[in-house]
Amino acid sequence: MNQEPSEHNSENGHPVRYWPRDSILEAWRLNSSLKDVANRCRLNAITAIQVAGSGHIGTSLSSLDIMVAVRRFLGGKTFLSTSTDRVFFSSKGHDAPAFYAVMHACGQLEDSDLFTLRRLGGLPGHPETITPGVATNTGSLGMGISKAKGFVKAQRLAQRDSRLPVVVMLGDGELNEGQIWESLPGAARDGFSELVAIVDANAIQSDTWTGSTLPMGDVRKRVEGSGWRFVECQGNDPDDVLRVLEESEKSNLPTFVWAQTVKGSGVPWMERFPENGEYYKFHSGAMDPILYAEASSILINAVAEGREANAENLLLGRPEFDALTPRARTESMLTLWERMLCDVMARDERVVALDGDLSFDTGTHLARHRFPERYIQSGIAEQDMVSMAGTLALSGHIPFVHSFSTFLTMRATEQIFNNATEYSQIIYMGFLSGLVPSAPGFSHQAVTDVGIMSSIPGMRVFEPACETELRWVVGQALEHKGPSFIRMGGLAPLSPAESEASSVERISGIEVALVSSGPLLAHQAIEAKDLLLDKHGVRAGLFSAAEITGNSLEKLAKELESYRTVVVLENHNPALAKYEVLKNLLGAKPAVRVSRLGLDGVPANGQPQEVLRYHGFDAVSIAGSVVDVMGQ
Amino acid sequence: MNQEPSEHNSENGHPVRYWPRDSILEAWRLNSSLKDVANRCRLNAITAIQVAGSGHIGTSLSSLDIMVAVRRFLGGKTFLSTSTDRVFFSSKGHDAPAFYAVMHACGQLEDSDLFTLRRLGGLPGHPETITPGVATNTGSLGMGISKAKGFVKAQRLAQRDSRLPVVVMLGDGELNEGQIWESLPGAARDGFSELVAIVDANAIQSDTWTGSTLPMGDVRKRVEGSGWRFVECQGNDPDDVLRVLEESEKSNLPTFVWAQTVKGSGVPWMERFPENGEYYKFHSGAMDPILYAEASSILINAVAEGREANAENLLLGRPEFDALTPRARTESMLTLWERMLCDVMARDERVVALDGDLSFDTGTHLARHRFPERYIQSGIAEQDMVSMAGTLALSGHIPFVHSFSTFLTMRATEQIFNNATEYSQIIYMGFLSGLVPSAPGFSHQAVTDVGIMSSIPGMRVFEPACETELRWVVGQALEHKGPSFIRMGGLAPLSPAESEASSVERISGIEVALVSSGPLLAHQAIEAKDLLLDKHGVRAGLFSAAEITGNSLEKLAKELESYRTVVVLENHNPALAKYEVLKNLLGAKPAVRVSRLGLDGVPANGQPQEVLRYHGFDAVSIAGSVVDVMGQ
Repeated sequence: MNQEPSEHNSENGHPVRYWPRDSILEAWRLNSSLKDVANRCRLNAITAIQVAGSGHIGTSLSSLDIMVAVRRFLGGKTFLSTSTDRVFFSSKGHDAPAFYAVMHACGQLEDSDLFTLRRLGGLPGHPETITPGVATNTGSLGMGISKAKGFVKAQRLAQRDSRLPVVVMLGDGELNEGQIWESLPGAARDGFSELVAIVDANAIQSDTWTGSTLPMGDVRKRVEGSGWRFVECQGNDPDDVLRVLEESEKSNLPTFVWAQTVKGSGVPWMERFPENGEYYKFHSGAMDPILYAEASSILINAVAEGREANAENLLLGRPEFDALTPRARTESMLTLWERMLCDVMARDERVVALDGDLSFDTGTHLARHRFPERYIQSGIAEQDMVSMAGTLALSGHIPFVHSFSTFLTMRATEQIFNNATEYSQIIYMGFLSGLVPSAPGFSHQAVTDVGIMSSIPGMRVFEPACETELRWVVGQALEHKGPSFIRMGGLAPLSPAESEASSVERISGIEVALVSSGPLLAHQAIEAKDLLLDKHGVRAGLFSAAEITGNSLEKLAKELESYRTVVVLENHNPALAKYEVLKNLLGAKPAVRVSRLGLDGVPANGQPQEVLRYHGFDAVSIAGSVVDVMGQ
Repeated sequence: MNQEPSEHNSENGHPVRYWPRDSILEAWRLNSSLKDVANRCRLNAITAIQVAGSGHIGTSLSSLDIMVAVRRFLGGKTFLSTSTDRVFFSSKGHDAPAFYAVMHACGQLEDSDLFTLRRLGGLPGHPETITPGVATNTGSLGMGISKAKGFVKAQRLAQRDSRLPVVVMLGDGELNEGQIWESLPGAARDGFSELVAIVDANAIQSDTWTGSTLPMGDVRKRVEGSGWRFVECQGNDPDDVLRVLEESEKSNLPTFVWAQTVKGSGVPWMERFPENGEYYKFHSGAMDPILYAEASSILINAVAEGREANAENLLLGRPEFDALTPRARTESMLTLWERMLCDVMARDERVVALDGDLSFDTGTHLARHRFPERYIQSGIAEQDMVSMAGTLALSGHIPFVHSFSTFLTMRATEQIFNNATEYSQIIYMGFLSGLVPSAPGFSHQAVTDVGIMSSIPGMRVFEPACETELRWVVGQALEHKGPSFIRMGGLAPLSPAESEASSVERISGIEVALVSSGPLLAHQAIEAKDLLLDKHGVRAGLFSAAEITGNSLEKLAKELESYRTVVVLENHNPALAKYEVLKNLLGAKPAVRVSRLGLDGVPANGQPQEVLRYHGFDAVSIAGSVVDVMGQ
């Protein structure tokens, strides 16, 4: 059996090692232990992350033994992707590097594919059906059991003779999401005994221990109470996982497997995280080259020695990390916000900060220590977080609600709307807004957030590009007696000199105005301005609009009137309905006046004729408005 | 004690009876039994509904004893509304008539207020903070425990000496919602022992028995597993309810009370619903005058005789209703859809229908009998329903997903987006879209749905106004290899003659075009057209646009070019971002060309520079686009 991995020179400049597909296929063929295969996949997973420059190491390593066992359980040669086949997918999805490594080990991916992780056209950061063999797009947490139920139902509608298992892997942090608990009873009602949900229970979620975040209580009771069978196993012992999977076939109930694992399993210094640890270091992100070299050696030795990689004797003397300080990072909109949030909370005792298990990634981690009473860790439970913010606001507080924009604006939309109908002052802080960071994939790229949030009554939508703008935006939000949405990212802010540019550019001879919001497109626009002058002889002026909707744009519009051409850069999808579409289509005919009679804000309620009149929608009001428009 | 109720002549033309506030206050003062007060409130609740012409009878009657007991438990003179006080609110909210009746009984509302239910400026159909004494807006199911937690947290931040109870009432159908289960663990973690959730467990949800919809399993185990104390009581025995509420004060854990009730409690023929009954008749809607007269007599007798109103001897010989046939109703967009869905399912075996406990209100109730295999009752679990539709679509099915538009587009937004990133063909059928029906209030009036759904990549958004348009729309959706959203309502469709109007109106001399979508505004526009001609001498042409976004509007735009003025009627809020706002603001300066460079569709993922280039957002692409625009 091949005990020597291959080398690959990454674009990052340092060599990486991996097990070629053929060597693993040979190991399978020679009836290698499941653990051996899993350890080969471990190397390939961390190598893929290393080449990509980012990815989730800890969960990839904790879940690998489960994935290999499921692979053996399903028995076929490949992970199969459609309802005509046995289905396995990971709901948490950020274990994608492990998933790909096992697909590769089963002959479904080429060696070269491993080095396309998180690249355009390559293997997405979270699983997507664009990769043959991936059953469904995941990474938006909590959807897995519902999706598995759809596959089961489809198989049943296909009326096959035998019931093929559908296996979905969950994270234990993911159990915070209400949809998990919402989806359980229907499977019991419908007798979906071929459904297996297996939890990669590594006990550490995004920032820290699940027990210090949002403890799930007695999961066995909750699951059994929902009509499922509940079993436990050792999740880093693939043979034990295989045993419970095989047992599940005898059950009349859907099976929920609690597979106890260790985050970072296989690399001893990734496995150690003290009980009072606050920031697990290997949740996401690539390693520095020295650490990578050591981790890869450990994993290669494990295969060579036929031992379990997490045996103590493989520890190569790595000192334990300081688990109480967060991972280092450079100045960004996020770090600006971390400090500013503390200032805001110090100045105004009404301010409370709510956080959805993203303390480190949404900038609450300084405030949580300074103002523990006014910091609320909601866990990965955005609906709960937003509704709780609602009544805190009704009680006189000013909540700042933190999450990634996709989760915040789409998981809790109805809750945000409900709060808006109470006219409450709530400030929604959405991170990872827009196209970049683009490596994690759709589930983490908020492009619909502006359309959604600008539909919510009374919502002001902001996107600051620098410290000055952030300060202005927060000030506006604190003055606005209604909800605000602040689109944020982890990108470098414009420097003071750069943000000055928009005002000093107001010199004569400027032919075109570029209007951006946020640092991503401002930085691009700054470069484009130079290109325009150098390559095309076009002088461009730059404008950064810190508010995306609303009245503050009037001032900007006045400034723009002196330009012949205005190009607006929007780091989000449009949300256009009939009036805007028709106005655009008729735009070439300036003789046509197009006017909108439509709703806005919170709708009135009452009897139909009352509210039609109230909104100017009854026939008399419409006729009057039409006459007014015609007279303009 | 006053045993004679007063009379009121409703606008509906028949007399109604009610207990004046002073008579109930006197009963309280004379230490009348809680049941006596509850029965007085029962009459007032059904009378308020009768005058309003709509409202939820069954749940109002089942919950009244609980509400009166909570009132006694909280001890003060009023239901108090802010975190500085003891808080009680109903999360399900459709028991608002009962809530108002108890507020009235506590002296918080005038007699005349009872007759303003569901009227503009009156008492909203679901509770809203606009009514002093209402703590928070409810009626969007599942938010209650989260909201109660916000009140508890606010009280704790206020650092009072004693911990005042916060009581929230839930429906048992409401327990379908994942947010309920999401919100439990945090209260246990934080030791919110002053929190009491009490379930009005009347065992019947919107259409039928909870056990035939989505059985919740062993609720005790699920709740105890989440770290709460679980107790049971007889919910129509207010003394028993009071007992468990008082016990809750000794608990160190938050308390979850399962209060067994009878839907329609107090009126024997509302209480009887056979085990195989499909459509409970008294879920919502006013009664015919004869039934109302009988129900009110029963409730008045109960007070007079000092007995429990639900004693068998109060049955006045009402024959049992046919519980297997649905409530009667007139032809509407909904009834058109009921039949059309059957046609679609008969023609194409791939079609499956998913329904969120609104079979009768979203038009699946014929199909569920004809195609039981392809009908999926998801319960009040929209997230689960939408994700399940996603994998059914990936497996080759064409799911039609039914709910009210507010719940469908806002509770399951991230799930809809996730499905869209798989480019799946899924047809979302949203009912109660737009301003009318307006009586239920914000939670049921979808005004943000267009902004939200038109933000979703690949989504076509339709709003048909008549049978012909509905047929066209469904045909378009069945051909579209992506998601569609069809805005529906229960309103009368345009007649064939009316829908012809838009084509025959294309005669010369027409000065203004009115463009509507859907029956509500089309009907108003038809009237407005006559008014314009009669009162203002203006000839108007009518256009109905069955698609709200997208390319089909191009044809319409061509037709509109011949008009000087076009007025677009939009039965929803706008969702405007920077580009559209600036274009509108600069509209008066035709010399200014305003162009958008923005995202659309599903965002690419990969490394930042890769995706910036892909979307034309890197500096080189921006410079090129600017030059192109300037050359136009």
